Amino acid sequence: MIKVGIVGGTGYTGVELLRLLANHPEVSLEVITSRSEAGMPVSDLFPNLRGHVNIAFSEPDPDILAQCDVVFFATPHTVAMALVPELIKRNTRVIDLSADFRLKDLAVWEQWYNTQHTCPELFEQAVYGLPELNRDKIKDAQLVAVPGCYPTATELGFLPLLEAGLIDPLHLIADAKTGVSGAGRKAAIPMLMAETSGSFKAYGVSGHRHLPEIREVLSQHCQQEVDLTFIPHLAPMVRGIHATLYARLTTHDVNLQKVFEERYANEPFVDVMPIGSMPETRSVQGSNICRIAVHQPQNSDTVVVLSVIDNLVKGASGQAIHNMNIMFGLDEKTGINVIAMMP
Amino acid sequence: MIKVGIVGGTGYTGVELLRLLANHPEVSLEVITSRSEAGMPVSDLFPNLRGHVNIAFSEPDPDILAQCDVVFFATPHTVAMALVPELIKRNTRVIDLSADFRLKDLAVWEQWYNTQHTCPELFEQAVYGLPELNRDKIKDAQLVAVPGCYPTATELGFLPLLEAGLIDPLHLIADAKTGVSGAGRKAAIPMLMAETSGSFKAYGVSGHRHLPEIREVLSQHCQQEVDLTFIPHLAPMVRGIHATLYARLTTHDVNLQKVFEERYANEPFVDVMPIGSMPETRSVQGSNICRIAVHQPQNSDTVVVLSVIDNLVKGASGQAIHNMNIMFGLDEKTGINVIAMMP
Amino acid sequence: MIKVGIVGGTGYTGVELLRLLANHPEVSLEVITSRSEAGMPVSDLFPNLRGHVNIAFSEPDPDILAQCDVVFFATPHTVAMALVPELIKRNTRVIDLSADFRLKDLAVWEQWYNTQHTCPELFEQAVYGLPELNRDKIKDAQLVAVPGCYPTATELGFLPLLEAGLIDPLHLIADAKTGVSGAGRKAAIPMLMAETSGSFKAYGVSGHRHLPEIREVLSQHCQQEVDLTFIPHLAPMVRGIHATLYARLTTHDVNLQKVFEERYANEPFVDVMPIGSMPETRSVQGSNICRIAVHQPQNSDTVVVLSVIDNLVKGASGQAIHNMNIMFGLDEKTGINVIAMMP
Amino acid sequence: MIKVGIVGGTGYTGVELLRLLANHPEVSLEVITSRSEAGMPVSDLFPNLRGHVNIAFSEPDPDILAQCDVVFFATPHTVAMALVPELIKRNTRVIDLSADFRLKDLAVWEQWYNTQHTCPELFEQAVYGLPELNRDKIKDAQLVAVPGCYPTATELGFLPLLEAGLIDPLHLIADAKTGVSGAGRKAAIPMLMAETSGSFKAYGVSGHRHLPEIREVLSQHCQQEVDLTFIPHLAPMVRGIHATLYARLTTHDVNLQKVFEERYANEPFVDVMPIGSMPETRSVQGSNICRIAVHQPQNSDTVVVLSVIDNLVKGASGQAIHNMNIMFGLDEKTGINVIAMMP
Repeated sequence: MIKVGIVGGTGYTGVELLRLLANHPEVSLEVITSRSEAGMPVSDLFPNLRGHVNIAFSEPDPDILAQCDVVFFATPHTVAMALVPELIKRNTRVIDLSADFRLKDLAVWEQWYNTQHTCPELFEQAVYGLPELNRDKIKDAQLVAVPGCYPTATELGFLPLLEAGLIDPLHLIADAKTGVSGAGRKAAIPMLMAETSGSFKAYGVSGHRHLPEIREVLSQHCQQEVDLTFIPHLAPMVRGIHATLYARLTTHDVNLQKVFEERYANEPFVDVMPIGSMPETRSVQGSNICRIAVHQPQNSDTVVVLSVIDNLVKGASGQAIHNMNIMFGLDEKTGINVIAMMP
Repeated sequence: MIKVGIVGGTGYTGVELLRLLANHPEVSLEVITSRSEAGMPVSDLFPNLRGHVNIAFSEPDPDILAQCDVVFFATPHTVAMALVPELIKRNTRVIDLSADFRLKDLAVWEQWYNTQHTCPELFEQAVYGLPELNRDKIKDAQLVAVPGCYPTATELGFLPLLEAGLIDPLHLIADAKTGVSGAGRKAAIPMLMAETSGSFKAYGVSGHRHLPEIREVLSQHCQQEVDLTFIPHLAPMVRGIHATLYARLTTHDVNLQKVFEERYANEPFVDVMPIGSMPETRSVQGSNICRIAVHQPQNSDTVVVLSVIDNLVKGASGQAIHNMNIMFGLDEKTGINVIAMMP
Repeated sequence: MIKVGIVGGTGYTGVELLRLLANHPEVSLEVITSRSEAGMPVSDLFPNLRGHVNIAFSEPDPDILAQCDVVFFATPHTVAMALVPELIKRNTRVIDLSADFRLKDLAVWEQWYNTQHTCPELFEQAVYGLPELNRDKIKDAQLVAVPGCYPTATELGFLPLLEAGLIDPLHLIADAKTGVSGAGRKAAIPMLMAETSGSFKAYGVSGHRHLPEIREVLSQHCQQEVDLTFIPHLAPMVRGIHATLYARLTTHDVNLQKVFEERYANEPFVDVMPIGSMPETRSVQGSNICRIAVHQPQNSDTVVVLSVIDNLVKGASGQAIHNMNIMFGLDEKTGINVIAMMP
Repeated sequence: MIKVGIVGGTGYTGVELLRLLANHPEVSLEVITSRSEAGMPVSDLFPNLRGHVNIAFSEPDPDILAQCDVVFFATPHTVAMALVPELIKRNTRVIDLSADFRLKDLAVWEQWYNTQHTCPELFEQAVYGLPELNRDKIKDAQLVAVPGCYPTATELGFLPLLEAGLIDPLHLIADAKTGVSGAGRKAAIPMLMAETSGSFKAYGVSGHRHLPEIREVLSQHCQQEVDLTFIPHLAPMVRGIHATLYARLTTHDVNLQKVFEERYANEPFVDVMPIGSMPETRSVQGSNICRIAVHQPQNSDTVVVLSVIDNLVKGASGQAIHNMNIMFGLDEKTGINVIAMMP
């Protein structure tokens, strides 16, 4: 059994980790920390876990955490970077769901997160945990940075086209829509149901923190400069990301469907849908799947990719466990082969 | 492996059976029928099942169905009664999610369903599949009638009080609220999102078919006449039933909390919540749990019971599989120990 | 033109007052106060008002407010009681949407609001602003206490039955459901969309502040002790209250429909619907109407009344303006004859 | 008073016409037709209209309709083209909310609507009823074709840029999102609340009927070939369209904000929001306003325009009445100066 700890378990990625790990056959949940709720049984805060998770939140204690085989950080940014070095030193592996180790360029990180990073020396060894990109590096990683939710959906949609050199890499457009759980479980007037229900809007148009992440990952992996316009939107639903991706084709006479099918032929959590499909977010609700469809409307030179994930699963906690499965040599699907709930 | 067939798999209870059975370790799904969609792969209709369910809908064929160990009927009423006798005769066990065998009183059945019943001779052997009431009979049943969704939530809420003789049985009130999936997957203007979203209403006030079911089950089990006012409401959500139950106490100095806790102490799928709790429907979303809380507001002589279920799971498909597990001697939780999804 | 001031304009009842008053032909909006947002143009906070309301929030100043003919308080409780005496002294009439002057019994008020009241001497002159009950007193009132949202829907539903002496007054049941806007515009985790969407729950079961209000108003008006069990619920929608009311009939052979129709024959904002109707909350969305239907299901001795309002209009701001129209001798419908938005 | 008739009043644009016309001070509603509901009082179908609209649906009768000054068609396509010629001949003006007269190119119309047009001879005299484009022609029009909902939001967003020659006209991208009321009031499984709530998807990716409309209107007006990729999406809400528009700038050193503000300086129903704004659909809910914001994210050469309308008001019925006001020389805001409902 893999001894697991969770730091920061009171948010939505925390409860989602618990929902999935509680039924994971190879995991023993040892400790879950929360400064604000220390002492409270986890299932008092999240009654869906009654009868499934019987431990209480505790104060974060590096000595206890270091006894785990792996520790998940489900925390706001800047929390992980304070604790991770100590854990790494003591050979506890870390899977960080926050943004602290997603970028390689320190200057860019500090500009976008508007604070000083306290352990940039770990940047090099941190592995960007997109299994479809970095499976081999993840196997031996001590520190994995789980991709952001928007970057997961966006990168998986653009990768086959960029890798095959089929599009202009400098003018990508990602028009992305998320459910409200993406904003996290914190008190804020703009996220009240009375503010968001029945309404749709863009936000972060001038610059969202997932923009430099997408730009850096795609540029590095494709060994060419990639740039994009990224417009996130808030949709009146709880879960789900729908990325509608646009790019200018630089070549014709290419079978786009085949490009995608071949790229992801062996990926357990990417589903390239049949020609003409338009995946809906509920088809991945609660599951770790990314469903993708590629279109060339009106036979123009603009390719359109539709990519949907559950932001809390493939976009966060499910992908984190996928990384854990790879790191510990398990069947990749273990514990996360959950079927989406429809309706 | 239990060979399973499903008749009528294109509705919401059908897809929910599939979601749960696809991961059930003791089940082999042999056949799923649909007259209207025969030939179509199941996962074309329900893309959440892509990669999990690989068979196609077929025309209903008694010879093929009879080769199954058990057949689920996820059909509108009057469909099961036409096919069940043949299956029973050939020793295939039947779990009927429809209303065809829920009542024992033929006259009442024909009055409320407004048609003639074609095999009332099976009424006696049909077992009402509420495990918390009829576990022993279910074990050997050839034919199980899965309770309606409202009756499940309502009966579980009133049972401890009625069995203990604590309330006036003739003036029960059940104010029940359901999500829209309860209306099924069929084209109808009143169930459009533009008609139901953001709005709340009562319906079936003059008489809903679940009223005689609740009345008969509670009366027979409690061996006294039970009567109730039952007002169903439509809430703007997809899943969930919240029953708010009212009764006049006939005695004082009774520990209501203890009555409930003891009644359900050994029930794997009834969760009596701590004193003061107010269960929310999402705490059971996707799970087979019924969560119950009992209150005596302002210390008056009116007891209030709050009972929540997922109408498609504990109120239909999950309970159906619970019955199957009992019928085939499995651990009752097998395949349905799913944790509710929050948020 | 009536010179109008609003104290506390940043909440939902505030913006709703503005939406309605901006198109009221007899009103001149002079001042709207907010400590937290002083200086900000109102339409920056509420962009729906762009082009309709051109003033900015200002600090509350009694001298300026006293120059108004009438001041609305759209504030949390305890704010009005601090400012109202000064305004009354200077002959500015006050319409208080908060709970400060709704009760007549000081001890009950202080118990339920858990604080000391600073001007109980105004209790006697404060008029409970339910026009259907107190039209004549409202005409000359200096101080009107606008009823709570639940009390409005509940009292209008029970009044005809109680006035006619048709029901047991000591065992009323009000099972009420509200949209989330009833919780106001303030940051709170339980009211996040990710917490409330797609879910239904009861709250305040042990005691809600609208309980003593309903009890006192009905008891005083009907000159007999009235008691009720009041269970509020939160429905996943923004606006609307649906009260399902239950009472035991003490007489038969009474035409309930006629009782309701006659009671409200001359009321411009109560719509007694035809026999068999089940009003939906969206049928009053944005309007000042209370729609009511009375039922006697299964011909039992339990009467069921369905009563729906928009909590922000008939349950707050619309009713406040209705009071103003009466106080200033205008046609009662002026400015609030808005048609509900469907869909 | 303008004598008004409505053909096809049972859909969402029909009830919205009624909501607005019932309070229009210069309108007398003479007749509203529906084959399916002839004889039924309008307010039985739409209870929000109880007390406001007192007529019943009637069979469509050209003789009666011809006695009106103006007739609105709120019908599916192909209905208007059968009746309009007769009305025009008898000097009754027509405002058609359907697609029958929106295009000038007959071949394109017949290709996209997949049927033969029966009166293409009216194409020339039909005026495309976007007041911001065709105000002068609308004044004297006998026949107005009200623009589609997506085209309204999209054209208003691109117009200032195209008219000023600032963008590449051949590679526009319109990523548009609509609420479910856009699909109309007709029974269809995909529009059930259980199918659409909590989910987001694209549809019509290969080609939507509003694509040729946008293309033709922009091309003709701008006297150059305009082409676009148009991807509509279904958002889980009832009302509202949010168009996110992308174009490649062909020039720099231009004040985009000023371009938009000047273009719409005198338009009563277009609100160019301040720099940095991100309009939400609920800010126009129930109102006839189009709110627009222009952005140049990361200072790249891609301009992003956000344009929101209520699909049933500015996208249909409100714009239709705006046209009527212009046609009959009224103040343009008469009867449609409604303030959006927030929350």
